[in-house]
Amino acid sequence: MEFTVQQIAELLQGTIEGNDQAKVSSLGKIEEAQAGALAFLSNAKYEPYLYTTGASAVIVSDKLELKKPVAASLIRVSDPYSSFSKLLSYYQNALLASKTGLEEPCFMGKGSTIGEGHYRGAFSYIGHNCTIGNNVRIFPQVYIGDNVTIGDNTTLFAGSKLYSNTVIGANCTIHAGVVIGSDGFGFAPQPDGSYQTVPQIGNVVLEDNISIGANTTIDCATMGSTIIREGTKIDNLVQIAHNVDVGRHTVIAAQSGISGSSKVGNHCVIAGQVGIVGHITLADKTTVGAQSGVSKSVTKSGTIIQGSPAFDYKQNLKAIAVFRNLPELQRELDFLKESNRNQSEIRDIK
Amino acid sequence: MEFTVQQIAELLQGTIEGNDQAKVSSLGKIEEAQAGALAFLSNAKYEPYLYTTGASAVIVSDKLELKKPVAASLIRVSDPYSSFSKLLSYYQNALLASKTGLEEPCFMGKGSTIGEGHYRGAFSYIGHNCTIGNNVRIFPQVYIGDNVTIGDNTTLFAGSKLYSNTVIGANCTIHAGVVIGSDGFGFAPQPDGSYQTVPQIGNVVLEDNISIGANTTIDCATMGSTIIREGTKIDNLVQIAHNVDVGRHTVIAAQSGISGSSKVGNHCVIAGQVGIVGHITLADKTTVGAQSGVSKSVTKSGTIIQGSPAFDYKQNLKAIAVFRNLPELQRELDFLKESNRNQSEIRDIK
Amino acid sequence: MEFTVQQIAELLQGTIEGNDQAKVSSLGKIEEAQAGALAFLSNAKYEPYLYTTGASAVIVSDKLELKKPVAASLIRVSDPYSSFSKLLSYYQNALLASKTGLEEPCFMGKGSTIGEGHYRGAFSYIGHNCTIGNNVRIFPQVYIGDNVTIGDNTTLFAGSKLYSNTVIGANCTIHAGVVIGSDGFGFAPQPDGSYQTVPQIGNVVLEDNISIGANTTIDCATMGSTIIREGTKIDNLVQIAHNVDVGRHTVIAAQSGISGSSKVGNHCVIAGQVGIVGHITLADKTTVGAQSGVSKSVTKSGTIIQGSPAFDYKQNLKAIAVFRNLPELQRELDFLKESNRNQSEIRDIK
Repeated sequence: MEFTVQQIAELLQGTIEGNDQAKVSSLGKIEEAQAGALAFLSNAKYEPYLYTTGASAVIVSDKLELKKPVAASLIRVSDPYSSFSKLLSYYQNALLASKTGLEEPCFMGKGSTIGEGHYRGAFSYIGHNCTIGNNVRIFPQVYIGDNVTIGDNTTLFAGSKLYSNTVIGANCTIHAGVVIGSDGFGFAPQPDGSYQTVPQIGNVVLEDNISIGANTTIDCATMGSTIIREGTKIDNLVQIAHNVDVGRHTVIAAQSGISGSSKVGNHCVIAGQVGIVGHITLADKTTVGAQSGVSKSVTKSGTIIQGSPAFDYKQNLKAIAVFRNLPELQRELDFLKESNRNQSEIRDIK
Repeated sequence: MEFTVQQIAELLQGTIEGNDQAKVSSLGKIEEAQAGALAFLSNAKYEPYLYTTGASAVIVSDKLELKKPVAASLIRVSDPYSSFSKLLSYYQNALLASKTGLEEPCFMGKGSTIGEGHYRGAFSYIGHNCTIGNNVRIFPQVYIGDNVTIGDNTTLFAGSKLYSNTVIGANCTIHAGVVIGSDGFGFAPQPDGSYQTVPQIGNVVLEDNISIGANTTIDCATMGSTIIREGTKIDNLVQIAHNVDVGRHTVIAAQSGISGSSKVGNHCVIAGQVGIVGHITLADKTTVGAQSGVSKSVTKSGTIIQGSPAFDYKQNLKAIAVFRNLPELQRELDFLKESNRNQSEIRDIK
Repeated sequence: MEFTVQQIAELLQGTIEGNDQAKVSSLGKIEEAQAGALAFLSNAKYEPYLYTTGASAVIVSDKLELKKPVAASLIRVSDPYSSFSKLLSYYQNALLASKTGLEEPCFMGKGSTIGEGHYRGAFSYIGHNCTIGNNVRIFPQVYIGDNVTIGDNTTLFAGSKLYSNTVIGANCTIHAGVVIGSDGFGFAPQPDGSYQTVPQIGNVVLEDNISIGANTTIDCATMGSTIIREGTKIDNLVQIAHNVDVGRHTVIAAQSGISGSSKVGNHCVIAGQVGIVGHITLADKTTVGAQSGVSKSVTKSGTIIQGSPAFDYKQNLKAIAVFRNLPELQRELDFLKESNRNQSEIRDIK
């Protein structure tokens, strides 16, 4: 895709300085961009690059005063960063939209329907009695079991897998290798020390505007539903166990795990490699620091915790500072004990 | 699938109170169930729901004395929970059993055989010289390499992958995205600082009645076999390295990892996000708490450890209690040092 | 594949003792090997097995003096271990090389080219405008997006997935279930508490001689490239976030995660389950102990750190030793406080 500076300026409602017929075909960082690229300047720290950049065009603030001549065409806007983000979105959406139609072979079972504007990649599989909305993009090798419902404008990347009875809302992005609806880890210990499987017959429900990162796994409920609520974003390699309920607009970073039946509130931030035990509740706006192990419910909104096991993050920071100094602390204590003994001896002598 | 209350009562050898021709087509929780659902009452805490439930039928204890009239049909049995579990198993098995036959296209190499009652989903791949038992269910996009052996009644969910020479027993469940038999992480450092690959030519052996959770990875042995023994249950996103040997009836929760050549005993419980270093042995019935890092062998059966690095879990709990109080402990120590100095000065003055 | 002892001796330039026409068809450990297997003896500790092994042939040192008669044929070489490793490599390469040609159905988009000697497994997918070198092995159900470049002799195992614009060098090994090029986890918080997706339009570049373990995920850059440099080896279930740059000949063990924009140097060793925060730099030859959380840059080459948060590993070891003893330390401190109070009282009385 190639555009003139004029076309982009019109899209962004910006004004042009320099050659309005210069052509750009890619987006780049101002410090690295080559001819044919469009860059942006938002942070003043990067201004020196403006005078040396190889980019053919740069989006700049309409308030910027040039200190030297600039070779690139300039597009002046009120907020260069958000204008550039807008372009990035256009670009990514255009790429996705270019995927349409059906690649053979692919499989669709009896009783399944799919809306307009869809893409079904080769080797993708749709089971029986599925209801799939408009503009849904199903990349190659995706697996969709039976009785699955998917809302409009949702994208399933290559090889993602939805077990039967999964419900996915609109505008969701499911990345490659994601598994949704696998059996919860439920096994009842028997008198002979073996384990009997507890059947898992529930499902997973994802509401709208959800993003699930590559190779993340979300187990179905034992009965009822494992739920991820509206707008929540989950990173790669995260584990969500059976009957978990994650609230709205919560973010969960990579490699974290939430154990069975726990409930995470709205607007929470769970950093990377966090573990949350089963059957607890985190209040809205809870923040959990990286690598923490959360073993108890958090009842107060806005709480920040850290550590394994996790507690108040400021106290944890202070405790860690002393922890690092423990060998010195031990020495001081030993010294005190020794001097105490000496004093006792002195007193005894007296 | 729709059943009458009478059919279900016969199956469970229960007695009916109310309409024996009422129809049920789903299973639900007593507090949420709607018309057409069958629920159960086991925990006395939930008895109030019995009088308000929307369920068409409820399984109850034959000893229960009703305090109010109940709209639902009742099926009385000696143990409602295990009767309900039995139904859940019937239900899940019936769902699996409904998957039979062959969906096109799918691939089977030369010299491979598969027993009766199987399901081979579309885009599934079976390599050369494989021996696959009866009633094996191979979901879409499963990959089975060459010379693989699979026992009766085993289910491989969508997109699970078995490298060549893998051996899987009977009654195993392999969830979506599982990788079995990938190369062990073996690289020999060279004088120039680069690494040379140590070929991994062993395989993975899973005995009978094993469950492997979604996106878990089990590496093949360098030589010989990585072994998971009978009845063991492994959760999602677990890493089992080359030449590991996991005993019988052990459970390993999500996101744990076991490093090369380590040996985990029978009837062990490994909680979530645990790491176990290489070349150690855990005795039978070892329990490892969540997020622990096990760096040494455990020789005594029944040991419970926790922490990173892990040690006796009670001592760990006590140490953690003091850890949280470290800033206060530091203050007390500083105070003692100060008062000690003062005393010394007092003595000096005297 | 079956060989005579003579053929193997010629390959290894060794001398034979015993039957030079004995046939071997597998490789095994000296303590377990059966008839038809070839084993080796390198570590003197295993010498007793030489006299009892079931192996048909054993590779031994040309300096070894036999203490008893040996049933197996012997192949004498200067370094049995490296000779055996050589055989393992031959064996593994021969297995890979036996995979050639095209299995139907498989998919290749417009404008894509692939070199000589390739293998394309059934249900593998190659998008549009890809450039794929010679002797590339693409196992079943592999997904390769559009505009992807792959160097010579690279192997992609079953179900690995490369998003569009990925660049892979020569002699790389990508294991089953790996995802390369998924969107970085970038979401901008909005005034209403929701998150807006930050488009991720960069790619992933893997240089030559890289190995990526099963189900590992590597996100594309927001702009520019996420880079893994020459010779680096990454284990299973590792997470590499957007814009990360991992240096040459670095090893990263299973289940570790590196957050966005961090830079890991050359010749580093990252143990298992390590977390590295975003936007930091680790100097060359940094070693990070298992389960560590790295929260700050490491500036000095050769630094070894451990702990969560990580610091000098020796200091960490000492601090942990005191940590385990904290309850005792608390008791001692309490005793000192008590005795201090008593002394004060004694002084007061005086």
